[in-house]
Formats: sequence, structure tokens, C-alpha cells
Amino acid sequence: MKAPLGVFDSGLGGLTVVRSLVRALPAESIAYFGDTARLPYGNKSPATVRRLSLEAYWFLRHLGVKAFVVACNSASALAMETLLREADVPVLGVVEAGARRAAAETVGGRVGVLGTRATIGSRCYEEALGALNPSIEVAAAACPLFVPLVEEGWLDREVTRQVARDYLAPLREAGVDTVILGCTHYPLLRRVIQEEMGEGVRLIDSGEAVAEEVRDMLTSRSLRAPAGAVPRHRFLVSDQAERFAEEAGKFLGEDLLGEVRAVDQSDLPWYDRWVPPGETREQEG
Amino acid sequence: MKAPLGVFDSGLGGLTVVRSLVRALPAESIAYFGDTARLPYGNKSPATVRRLSLEAYWFLRHLGVKAFVVACNSASALAMETLLREADVPVLGVVEAGARRAAAETVGGRVGVLGTRATIGSRCYEEALGALNPSIEVAAAACPLFVPLVEEGWLDREVTRQVARDYLAPLREAGVDTVILGCTHYPLLRRVIQEEMGEGVRLIDSGEAVAEEVRDMLTSRSLRAPAGAVPRHRFLVSDQAERFAEEAGKFLGEDLLGEVRAVDQSDLPWYDRWVPPGETREQEG
Repeated sequence: MKAPLGVFDSGLGGLTVVRSLVRALPAESIAYFGDTARLPYGNKSPATVRRLSLEAYWFLRHLGVKAFVVACNSASALAMETLLREADVPVLGVVEAGARRAAAETVGGRVGVLGTRATIGSRCYEEALGALNPSIEVAAAACPLFVPLVEEGWLDREVTRQVARDYLAPLREAGVDTVILGCTHYPLLRRVIQEEMGEGVRLIDSGEAVAEEVRDMLTSRSLRAPAGAVPRHRFLVSDQAERFAEEAGKFLGEDLLGEVRAVDQSDLPWYDRWVPPGETREQEG
Repeated sequence: MKAPLGVFDSGLGGLTVVRSLVRALPAESIAYFGDTARLPYGNKSPATVRRLSLEAYWFLRHLGVKAFVVACNSASALAMETLLREADVPVLGVVEAGARRAAAETVGGRVGVLGTRATIGSRCYEEALGALNPSIEVAAAACPLFVPLVEEGWLDREVTRQVARDYLAPLREAGVDTVILGCTHYPLLRRVIQEEMGEGVRLIDSGEAVAEEVRDMLTSRSLRAPAGAVPRHRFLVSDQAERFAEEAGKFLGEDLLGEVRAVDQSDLPWYDRWVPPGETREQEG
């Protein structure tokens, strides 16, 4: 019960999920892994995303986590089946959680989805929503400029508003009443997105949704940390630990910062083992 | 002499350098490696960029390249010393070449530099320009949204113009007469950048500059392919070979496409070897 929750993201965006988890489960310790050396996952192939997600799973599992939360939408979209097959602790992903909440909240049955190109291209939210309620109509929009805009800190600029207007047009035309923020960075653009969509539209933060599901799962399995336990958070990144504190504040709030450490990820050199088909390795001088 | 030129980039942007090389050296074969599984390099630490650049060097060297062109500005900024120390063939980088051409072309001695956060943060163009002519004044601007705008194909939109206006303001204020396009993607925004800077300002394409230096180096060392040789181009990427043809057209023009192949880069699992300091590895169940 005192074991930490494992949270995995391709970078630091998953810290918005950590924030939601800490709000929902203040006694739980969190072991976070952000794969900053290899982000972003949003433009990688499914096979690569699955490989990296499994590596992250085993890495956090070696630290003794009692559950594995996939905060990265791309990984949640592409690697959930693989993870559920390989894992020996509960695995929860933002996509399923976000879809369940959207299906519960939509009134008119028209749901919009915003995400990276990989998330939208995978049609993962359509599939998850269709499985929950086949009558729900989905309008999806890939928003590849949102992440760099957030990382630039341009949360409330005219440029950001203009980009949002372009990206959200198909969702407005489809008349959606509920919009899933299908990327960890997008909650930081909530105000601009809400304004462009109109006040009547519900925005679903997939991170908030998964945090509630984690709480329910831990409760039902009697895995919750004792009330009043003092949590110990650890933040592990595969690159640039020294920039973590500076960047993490955007997503997390500084009071939550725990121990931060870089993972030594000196891969064994793959180039040394690879020989092109039909060629022999030339001798090095 | 018939050996290929090796060209290395973090992704597909380096294909703008290939295009310049093919124009300058039509008889040369090119072996390109784009590290698409691990891009972008612009937000990675210097140590990681050096490690990945060395991997790319040895990978292309195993294919028998006679020279190694670093098309990636981040790698050229951070890994040149390492590469020059380790390499047993000539290594040429876009940064040095771009700086040399800018120093030759500036009239008033005020040069602007545009690049990713990593390139600008490394101050590599300042150092290179300072070594060539200490009286040159440099104004630099990081433009992290330019790459995603190019990748979105928004080369000529109002949003792009507005972003360019914001980014270029400090260069206009500094009164530069020459601007280095210090990122492989930026030549595709040449028109917008030229319009925002004004017609009198010279834009330096670092890829064009390095292509000329490669030609001079091959000529002086008698390493040029025989005139009229039929070149054979190979494009190797560490992920998403199937998207290459579609994306490469933007940068390269389709007539140049040669053989395309994905590199099997299944790293040996680093997580399996990593144990946090002061902890012992828990036994897997």
C-alpha cells in the first residue's frame, strides 16, 4: 500500500496528470518517469512507441510501483494492449479514462477530440467512445502547434488564439457539446480553447479523469496509502534533469517538487550491431 | 572517390542540405541518416547530442562514407569537437560554413542568427563569427515555433507571418544586414523571413554554404566522384521509413528520392542495467 504510483510520460506534460493525482490522492507517493531524451512520442511509429512504453514500464516496475499510469496520450493510444499483456500491476491510461468521462458528460452525443497527430491518427478516442456508446458522433482535430505554443509559454497570445481558431473550426462546425483535451499539455490552453469553443461546451481533462479512476481502482483493491501518510515523490527523466525544476513549475506548481534525478540511459550502441542486409561490415582502421 | 558522402540530421530537415549538395555536386552519391526515432535534438542536453551524433557517425562510417556532413545545427553546435576528435574522415558542419559565409557577406558587420533554442543557447554562431572577425556584432533569436510551422506546411499563413514578426523584432532593432538561417527547416520560410526583414537583408542558408565547402574540400583532396558518374542515393531513417517519401518531397523534390530504408535501432534495454544509487534491484516476480 505504501508503494508509489508509477506515472509515465514522454516528457514533462504528464506532470499535469501528477497534479490531478496529488489532488485526488494526497497520501500517495509518485514515481514519475519522463522520457525527455526521446520525446516527443507524437511523431514516432506505433512499434517505437510500444517499445519505449515497455521500457518505461519495466523501468518504473523495478522501482516497485503498485500501478502504472500512462499519462502520455500517444503511448496510451498505441501501447495499451501491449502494456496490459505484459504488466503484472494495474495499468491505467488517459485515453480510456477521458473517453469514459466524455461519454458520461455529453448531452447531445457529439464529442470533439483534440490531440497530437499520432493520437488523432490512431483514432483511439473514436474507438474507445464507440465501444462505450456507438451512437456518439466524434469530430477530431490534430493540433500539432499546441505543444510548442505551451512550451514557448504563449498561453494567451493572439497567435495562440488564431491557431486555436483554425484547429477548432471543424469541432465548432460539428456542433460538439463536449471536447476531450487529448494531450497532457492542452489543459494549459484551457482558457483559450474554452473561449474559442464557447462557454456552453464542456472540456474534459483526460488527466483529471484518469486520476479519479486511479483513486477508484486503489480503493476497490485496498491498495490506498494509509490516510495521513507523508508522500515521497520522485521525478526521473532520461535527459536534462537540471532543467526539470525550471520547466516543471509550469505544469506542477513548485510545492510538489520532490527528488529529481536523471536516468543514465547510455544505450548500448545499436549501430555496432547493425549490418545492412546484403552487405558485410567494413573493418575499422 | 566513388564512396558516398555521409549526411546526418536529427530528422528530415537535413534533406534541404542534400538538395544543396546535389546541386553543387551532381555526380556524388549520398548516404543520408535521419535519426527520426530520436528527433528533435534541439531540446536535448549537450551530452546526449554528442552521444547520438557519434552513433550516427559510426553508423554512416560503417557504410563507407568518404566524408561526414553534419546537417543538423544542434549537432553541429554541440558535437563538432567530439566528432573531429573521433572521426577518420573529413567532418564538415553547417554552423562553421554558415558563419564563414555570413562573415564574408556582411557589409555593416551586423549579423543576425535564427535557430532552435539549443542552437541559439549554445552561442555557437557567435563563437564561430567572433573567431572569424571579432568586430562583427551578432543578434540572435530562438524560433522554436518555426519547425512545427514548417512541418504543419503553414509556410505562408498569417499566423506564420505573425510568429516571424515577433521572433525577428530583435534582429530588426539591431539593424542586421545579414541573417543566418541556422536550422535546416528555415529555408522553407525564406519568403516570410525575407519579407519581415526587408528586401535589403541577405539571408544565408547554412546548407548551401556547407555544400560549397564540401565541394571545395573534395576538389582539393582529389576525392570527387568522376564527372558523369551516376549517383546512388540512400536514405536511412531510424523510424517511420514509410512516411519518408511523403514528407521528403517538401524538402528534397521527388526526382531525387533514392532507396529508403529504416534502420533497426532496437536499443538494448538500458532500464535493465540501471539501478538507482543506494538501492538494490527488486526481484521480479
